[in-house]
Amino acid sequence: MSSIINHQFRLAARPVGLPKPTDWRATEEPLREPGDGEFAIHNEYISLDPAMRGWMNEGKSYIPPVGIGEVMRALTVGRVIASRHPGFAVGDFVSGVFGVQEYAIANGKGATKVDPRLPLPVYLGALGVTGMTAYFGLLDVGAAKAGDTVVVSGAAGAVGMLVGQIAKISGCTVVGIAGGPEKCRYLGELGFDAAIDYKAGDVRKALREQCPKGIDVYFDNVGGDILDAALALLARGARVVICGAISQYNNTGPMKGPANYLSLLVNRATMRGFVAFDYAARYPEAIAAIAGWIASGRIKTREDIVDGLASFPDALLRLFRGDNVGKLVLKV
Amino acid sequence: MSSIINHQFRLAARPVGLPKPTDWRATEEPLREPGDGEFAIHNEYISLDPAMRGWMNEGKSYIPPVGIGEVMRALTVGRVIASRHPGFAVGDFVSGVFGVQEYAIANGKGATKVDPRLPLPVYLGALGVTGMTAYFGLLDVGAAKAGDTVVVSGAAGAVGMLVGQIAKISGCTVVGIAGGPEKCRYLGELGFDAAIDYKAGDVRKALREQCPKGIDVYFDNVGGDILDAALALLARGARVVICGAISQYNNTGPMKGPANYLSLLVNRATMRGFVAFDYAARYPEAIAAIAGWIASGRIKTREDIVDGLASFPDALLRLFRGDNVGKLVLKV
Repeated sequence: MSSIINHQFRLAARPVGLPKPTDWRATEEPLREPGDGEFAIHNEYISLDPAMRGWMNEGKSYIPPVGIGEVMRALTVGRVIASRHPGFAVGDFVSGVFGVQEYAIANGKGATKVDPRLPLPVYLGALGVTGMTAYFGLLDVGAAKAGDTVVVSGAAGAVGMLVGQIAKISGCTVVGIAGGPEKCRYLGELGFDAAIDYKAGDVRKALREQCPKGIDVYFDNVGGDILDAALALLARGARVVICGAISQYNNTGPMKGPANYLSLLVNRATMRGFVAFDYAARYPEAIAAIAGWIASGRIKTREDIVDGLASFPDALLRLFRGDNVGKLVLKV
Repeated sequence: MSSIINHQFRLAARPVGLPKPTDWRATEEPLREPGDGEFAIHNEYISLDPAMRGWMNEGKSYIPPVGIGEVMRALTVGRVIASRHPGFAVGDFVSGVFGVQEYAIANGKGATKVDPRLPLPVYLGALGVTGMTAYFGLLDVGAAKAGDTVVVSGAAGAVGMLVGQIAKISGCTVVGIAGGPEKCRYLGELGFDAAIDYKAGDVRKALREQCPKGIDVYFDNVGGDILDAALALLARGARVVICGAISQYNNTGPMKGPANYLSLLVNRATMRGFVAFDYAARYPEAIAAIAGWIASGRIKTREDIVDGLASFPDALLRLFRGDNVGKLVLKV
């Protein structure tokens, strides 16, 4: 192991607004030997997620922030290259929180073996936390059921594209909101009933046209004005699922709260936040369902793969520019 | 009947900001005879509620707005003075939506007979929609249970004072937020564990001191900065009950949305709006419980009574100035 040099990205400073190149420090160090009960992984793919922006901030959240000087936290999938752990053998493929680096030493906690007959990035997308987020957020938090009108923002993103497809499978009418004609065309290919290009005009007006009976479930990935537009059109008893707020993560001014939140009162509606990790005990249920839908062709997966660990700082920004379609993944 | 002159307040214009005297028209007309299946009521007390401000606005809400020229909608309690309705006899005391006027003709729909051995204003407060709002909002929407930390804003108002007392009866730790030392002293008399004077300093800091384990149930009557302060201190799995937003009802600028709403995500919390009318089928349960608590002295009621129908326009403003302690009622 000592001959292996591990390249890493560490957090150098807490960003103000969009992460800058100087917020990162590229480091290299020899990979140490795994100790008793440990194994070494070569990361093959690294998941790039909007939530990473939150992990870079100081202060209380659903998990502690990444410390200054620490390797940036990330979900990855890789191959075991050395092991002193009884449960993981050389050659096993494993997914876990192994960080933005080429290699990692792990003790198995939070690590899951994966079947390499499927393309590895799928374990960061539809069969990973992304898929768990879509599945439990829509079906459990949002309680979507046949006949509901479901609206999802960030619809061409990793979570959004799955939310829409699972909603279609569940018998819902599905409207996706995304930026630009290319993404909207893609939502059509995925079987969405309608796609709204938020860059092209008045989202509230478009929602009113597409949701004549109001919105039963609004799955929000973006926050800001689009959340307000959806709130204005809730159906009675609607469920608003707060998954994220990518429009707000890089704000340097105050957060924009949903001015139309009293629609919750008028429409006896619920707004609920969630974190997919809380559903860990039920992941097998979701993985079985999603794997089945992928196998039968009812769910299409799509990865947006950026090449090379060195691309990390810029690749992450693609999320906040809205450049990616589908699951953004870094190939190490 | 034709010799009786009925004095009324009708909506003359949709207010911009606080209702002005010119938004009302005082009218008088002879009271017509009740027809078949109708009865005539003399209103003795008229309920003044923050929700009335919402009913004066154009546009969709949980009930249609009051039309221009119509008698202002209000809950009242009064005495039947003539009847051609088999269910209501002269001398019966009745509560219902009989409007801001001395007399009304009713057909019995939505009317409830009340027992005159209790002071009549109680049927507009603890045993009326006010009480139903507090009971179902706290126990059903908020799912408050023993051991919870419950925070209520507008705590010295009609709903708030009941929410706090019912929460104490339910075994919760109760923190009330109100404006000024007099109201805060009163919350102490009611048995609240702590009272925060939002006019005296930093509400968020005070909440942090009073709720060391975070807030499990936040019952919001006010919106604005106080809602944001409470959101910042939610405990995991918290329930935020949206009952009203009196700080925002007379805004002429944009509504202030809760900037800290992503606390719902971090804390897996729920924000839910409700309308007490939806619980009508369960009113008897709540009335029995609250009447029992009043009888045993565990709930104190308090009315703030303003004299004379002519006082209506100014009396209503007392709500928005925060002048009232307890249930604001107009004595006809």
